[in-house]
Parts: sequence; C-alpha cells; structure tokens
Amino acid sequence: MRTIAIIGSTGSIGTQTLDVVRANADIRIGALAAGNNIELLEKQVREFRPALVSVQSKDKADALRIALSDFNCKIVYGMDGLIAVATYEPAELVVTAIVGMIGIRPTIEAIKAGKDIALANKETLVTAGHLIMKLAEEYHVRILPVDSEHSAIFQCLHGERENKIAKLLITASGGPFLGKTRGELKDVTVEDALKHPNWSMGRKITIDSATLVNKGLEVIEARWLFDVMPEDIEVVVQPQSIIHSMVEFEDGAIKAQLGTADMRLPIQYALYYPERRYLAGDRLDFSKIAGIITSKPDRETFKGLDFAYQAIKTGGSMPTVLNAANECAVAKFLHKDIKFLQIYDIIEACMGEHKTIANPTLEEILETERWVYDYIERQFG
Amino acid sequence: MRTIAIIGSTGSIGTQTLDVVRANADIRIGALAAGNNIELLEKQVREFRPALVSVQSKDKADALRIALSDFNCKIVYGMDGLIAVATYEPAELVVTAIVGMIGIRPTIEAIKAGKDIALANKETLVTAGHLIMKLAEEYHVRILPVDSEHSAIFQCLHGERENKIAKLLITASGGPFLGKTRGELKDVTVEDALKHPNWSMGRKITIDSATLVNKGLEVIEARWLFDVMPEDIEVVVQPQSIIHSMVEFEDGAIKAQLGTADMRLPIQYALYYPERRYLAGDRLDFSKIAGIITSKPDRETFKGLDFAYQAIKTGGSMPTVLNAANECAVAKFLHKDIKFLQIYDIIEACMGEHKTIANPTLEEILETERWVYDYIERQFG
Repeated sequence: MRTIAIIGSTGSIGTQTLDVVRANADIRIGALAAGNNIELLEKQVREFRPALVSVQSKDKADALRIALSDFNCKIVYGMDGLIAVATYEPAELVVTAIVGMIGIRPTIEAIKAGKDIALANKETLVTAGHLIMKLAEEYHVRILPVDSEHSAIFQCLHGERENKIAKLLITASGGPFLGKTRGELKDVTVEDALKHPNWSMGRKITIDSATLVNKGLEVIEARWLFDVMPEDIEVVVQPQSIIHSMVEFEDGAIKAQLGTADMRLPIQYALYYPERRYLAGDRLDFSKIAGIITSKPDRETFKGLDFAYQAIKTGGSMPTVLNAANECAVAKFLHKDIKFLQIYDIIEACMGEHKTIANPTLEEILETERWVYDYIERQFG
Repeated sequence: MRTIAIIGSTGSIGTQTLDVVRANADIRIGALAAGNNIELLEKQVREFRPALVSVQSKDKADALRIALSDFNCKIVYGMDGLIAVATYEPAELVVTAIVGMIGIRPTIEAIKAGKDIALANKETLVTAGHLIMKLAEEYHVRILPVDSEHSAIFQCLHGERENKIAKLLITASGGPFLGKTRGELKDVTVEDALKHPNWSMGRKITIDSATLVNKGLEVIEARWLFDVMPEDIEVVVQPQSIIHSMVEFEDGAIKAQLGTADMRLPIQYALYYPERRYLAGDRLDFSKIAGIITSKPDRETFKGLDFAYQAIKTGGSMPTVLNAANECAVAKFLHKDIKFLQIYDIIEACMGEHKTIANPTLEEILETERWVYDYIERQFG
C-alpha cells in the first residue's frame, strides 16, 4: 500500500488523480490540500479519509472543521498548511497539482523531505527549474511529469536514459485559434478562447493554449526536466492531440507516445512509474482516423513560443517574468479588462523592462513576480 | 571490439550491415557467407578481412579461392559452410540476412553455439518460431529483429518488458497497389509490382509487399518474437512508412517508432542493442510533411493478411505452407509464368490441401516445404 499527498485536490488534475486512486486498491490518500472549494474538499475527505487536510485561509479551515466535526482529520491552512501536506510523513509521493507560483515552496519542502514529486504545477520548473532539478538530484527524489506532453517524453525516454537525445518534439494542439491571422484575433472573446478542441482543462491553461504561451512554458519545463538545450526542442502542431510528444535520438529514431486525450494516463503513469496498469477508458482507434495531421506553428501570430525561447535564452529570472506577466494578463483577459492580443503586449512590455537576475534564489524569483505585478498595475492599471 | 558474422552478406541487408560496420571502429567481421555473387564477396573480403567465408557451391568456392589466392582466408561452402560461419567461434552475434528456409538450420546452430541473432531471415520465425524461441530461451541468446517493423516494436518495448502488451500495431505501406481493386490487379506486370513506393528492397520481398503476404509473414513473426496472440496484432496501413510500428499497453498508451526509411537504423540498433549511436543520414522533418496518413488494410483484395491469420490460427506446419507456396508462386510471377492474382490462388490451393502437422520438427518443416513444391509442380506445372 502506498500513501500519497495531493496539493490542489479540487482542481482538474487533483480530481483526476483521485479518480486514479479510486480505481486502484493499493494506493491511499494521506493528505490533501485545496484552496477555497471546501464543499468538494469535504466530499473528498469523506471518501478518501486523509489524516491531514489544508485549505487556503483560517476562515475556510474553520468552516471545514464545522462541516467535518464528525470526522477525525487534522485541518490546517495557508502556506504552513501546504508545507505540512507536502511533507506529510507517511506519503512517499506528492502530486503538486496546485496552480501558480504558490506551488514552488511546498514542492521544495516535499523534495527536502525525500518525497517523489508528480509534478503538475507548471510554475515550479518554469521559474525555478535550476533550483528544483539540483535539489531533486541532491535528495535523490524523482520528478515525475504529469503534463501529457512531458509524460509522453518521459515514457519515450524510459529505458533510453543512456542514449543521447538529439531533439525533443513537443506537440501542440494549436488551440481554438489555429490557422487564424492576427487580424482575425483582434476581437475574439473569452468564450471563443475557452473552446479548446481536445482537452477539458482549467480556464487559465485553456487561454494559455490559445496564445501558445502554454506550449512555450512547456518548452521551458522540458529544458529542465530532460536537460535539453532549447535549440534542440521543437514544437510540432498536431491539432488532434493524438501524438502527445516525441523524442528523436542520435541515430535518427523517433519515439512517440500516442493515445486519447485522457489526463488519467499520465497521472497514473507518474503514480506507478515505471509500472503500467490497466486504465479503463477509450482507446485510440486507427480504423476511425484517416491520419495524424501535423504542421509548423505560426510563431509570428502566436508569439507565446518566441517569448519562451527568448526567456530561456536570457535565463535567470526572465522565465519568471514571462510566467507572471502571462498569469496577470490572462487574468485581465478572463475579467474582460483587455483584449486577447493585449496578452502578448503585456508580456512583451514586462520582458522588455525587466533587469534579469542571473541564477535567482527562490526569494528573488518571488520578488520578480511581485515586480511584474507592480509593473503591470502601474502601466496597464 | 566485437566480432560478428553475416550470413547473406551480398544481399540488401548484408551490404547495409557492412555499411554500419564500416562506420563504426569497434566492430569487426569475423565470417561472411554469401550465395553466388563472388565478385561482390571478394570485394567484401578484401575490405573487411574475415577469417572465414562461405559460398553456395564447391565451384564458387574454387573460383573464390583463385580470386583470393593472395589472401589469407578460409573458404568453405554449402550447408556445412553456412553452419561454420554461423558458429564461427570468435563471433558473439550472427546477422542472418540470407533469404529462404535455408537460413533456419544455420540460425539454430548459431543459437546452440550461444550467439545472439540479428534476425533478418523471415522464414526462421514464420516456419519454426515455436522451435527457435524455445531454443533461444534455453541457450540464453537474444533474438534481435532487424526488420524495420519488428525493430520498431522492439524499440518501443525496451524498458517496458514488465508491462503488459495490449496490442501490437504493425504498419504497412500498402505497397505499389494500395487502393486498387481486384479488377485493376488482374493484368499488373512484374515491373508494376516492383515499384515499391518507399523502400528499396530485394525483388521477392517487394512482391510480397504488393500482395501483403509480407505483412502477413510479419504478423506471424511478431506473434513469436513478442509472444502476442494474433488477435492482438493489428495491421495499420501507413503509406508514407513514417511510423515503423507501434505497441499499445494496457493503460491505453501507445508507443511508436518513427523515422526515415533507412534499414541501417534497425541493423545498427540490433548490433549495439540497447545502445544507440549516431547514424549519418536524413532525419524525419516534420516541417516538410503535412501529416501521417493511416487507413485500414483492404483484406478482401489483398488476401495475404488473411492467409497469415488463418495460418497462425491453424498453427503447426501451416505457416510453412503459406511461406513455401508464396515463395514458389512469387518465383513463378517474377518469371512471368503466372499473373499477379494467381499468387493468391496458389497459396490458397496449398493451404486448402495441406494436412497440418502439429508442433513440427525442423525435418517435418523441411518436408512440408518439399510437399508444397511438389504439389505446386503437379497442380500448376
């Protein structure tokens, strides 16, 4: 019986992780952390019986204590609560499914506590990849990617670790605006941008998919996860999301991982790596597809990719600027304060203005994030 | 420095194996066997300096001795010669690139002598898979597939050996007659059939690709190589030959190996397994393709696949009948004695007439081959 903890249990990845746990008899939930959705969290606690639960604030913790007054479960909150869940002693693995830079500190503490990390928090590697991968090596813990693209690469690399990687080929659906020109993107709405063709995901990541910023952030993550230089990471548009990503080796052989769009697969792979298990669900049926469409990304219209390559090239705190500026800009777009293409304008302005800090500490990364927020507030209100 | 032997050094796979050896400094040729092309063989001997060489007949051996009179190299011939090369003491691996059932005995002797086998002789597993795989286990030798499809599967399975295979997906180019109806195939010529769209191969295998018998034989080989039941082996038509084959695991993940059409890749992979090395040559360029086309095979027109599934289902000596009847029929077609579709008629007649021997010995397999030849001679002249 293995015990795991989940940080971000009420989100898309969190609930699907619980689906996987529900389907397997030899895994249990030791600790859960969520934000404000205590209604769902209460249900999760009653079903999975964790010993420790964390929520965002004292108010939510008090409310949850009342709701769970018949239940024996320790309830904590805030950053201390997240860290308590991340370092929960009986857990051997922590799923970091929380969104945002708030996920970095708990991840660091989990690594220091010797936990394997099933990593779904994008910001961890984007902003602090240089710290995290070193730390993981030092504490001999595994960073197991949960993102479908990185999981695909991770699956393709399994058994090939001694063989040199020539290139990573990260696939991109292209999002709902694939094929559109800048002119056509001028007046697209939040509703248009949320119509992702293949995956059902959170709102923020769906917008990031439409701007290709998401793919850019994945390139940065891949750079750290697999120790591959950005010039050896290529993005291939594959609108059906059948190929989840690929690796080219030095002999020219390409390995790809394909499948249906089901996040439970990479989640389960991370939980049981390197063991695979039966997973109920649809299978890819080649008799029902006429082929696998591929194309080159339109990097002039969808500037998210170029921003990412620039950010890795500059290095240091620049990926944090890309990430924070994007987070802020997307929030403004989702609140209908700005138009779609202004997301790019805000990122560009921040990256242009930032004085890069080389090899930043976590404190400097978080300072950079604050600087970005302040700068955007001053410039774009 | 590793030493290898090649059986069938002057054919398509043999010469490409020597290309790989030429490009690598830490591998040497200990022994070579060829058929009648002693002009090419002489050149190979002078370049690669094997200690032992075998040819088909005493006449050819005498001729080669004269040609190589200035050269210190033992020259042998016939089945004894093949076996001497297959069991050549300093070699740790034997590439069995010879065509036809003549390759089975030397392969068996090589296994008994503890050599790993880089298997390119199709007949070995098609007719004697039940004997070969058992023997390989008994003598702890590896059967390393050289065929691009089986190598692709082998590559996809590397590191996954403990994980259950749900399905093998063997890709087929569909050959030069893909999309044609039976009516359109009535009067196709040898020249038409030899125009393979993607691969440059020997004449016999190119015809087998046009009839889909080749793909059927590959299904039988895969059944033995990977211990997968025929109902879990699916053929996917992929006319560009970009995907070389795929494996679906029980979690629904599919792994695929993709690349350009270069046989040196699977050859090199077999020689250095599980190590990959740089291989000069073209790389797959996703910016130059619009996608990967797939379709279902037309099994009513191209009966080669159904014959193979029938033959595995019946088992015993039946795959030998399919293989021998096809060999004979293709020879007749290449000699323009019969028409293209009569290849199927001859196979069907032989399979219909044969009394299956369950679990046949090598002697019974060879007897079955002779029975097929006699039967075709009597029935079709």
